[in-house]
Amino acid sequence: MYYKNKKINKNFEQTELAVREELSNVGFGILTEISVNEVFKKKLDIDFKKYKILGACNPHFAHKAITSEEMIGTLLPCNVLLIERDNGTEVAIMNPSSAMSVVNNESITPLANEVESLLNQFLDKL
Amino acid sequence: MYYKNKKINKNFEQTELAVREELSNVGFGILTEISVNEVFKKKLDIDFKKYKILGACNPHFAHKAITSEEMIGTLLPCNVLLIERDNGTEVAIMNPSSAMSVVNNESITPLANEVESLLNQFLDKL
Repeated sequence: MYYKNKKINKNFEQTELAVREELSNVGFGILTEISVNEVFKKKLDIDFKKYKILGACNPHFAHKAITSEEMIGTLLPCNVLLIERDNGTEVAIMNPSSAMSVVNNESITPLANEVESLLNQFLDKL
Repeated sequence: MYYKNKKINKNFEQTELAVREELSNVGFGILTEISVNEVFKKKLDIDFKKYKILGACNPHFAHKAITSEEMIGTLLPCNVLLIERDNGTEVAIMNPSSAMSVVNNESITPLANEVESLLNQFLDKL
């Protein structure tokens, strides 16, 4: 599976706040943010449920990964997805060991596993 | 290969301008930007060459992809990487058909191929 997901019983905005706080607790900052539904409205005039992609990064692991495999920046940062649901919000994280499986560099595998473990901790605590 | 790259004989800033213009010519806007070297300096106090990740998106294809495979947002947007070199700048794009190969949904394959074709056009013209 290329992602892992969890349904949260909070509204979209409350979930985003909790996501930011819990990510910070495992050493990840949010570097990017795309409100996909706003892009669809503006560019395509299509109404879409709230759907946001947050780009999370742990600078320590990012530095290790880039110094081991310079082009891995094409696969960074780690995405955290928020989707509006009827009675709450769904949160999904990309699965780093799956996303990084296309990289043929054995020094990346243990890094991807460590990042995955931290992101799983984040999702469990959320 | 999970990326495709090209060396450009322009400095970093000139290359970024050209990248933004040529991406726009194939229907992609830049939605996110991470100056990775600035993050490393600020968070780790490490000096690093200029290294920037731009998040490119074609809203039409993004909408098609998300309506076919809701969780694909964990793998979006398409990254364009700029790395400072001695006599120019290296530009690398993620290879959508490689990155999306982890998604087990046959309606995604033709979309990934179309996006890949547009990004290859972009890289050829650059």
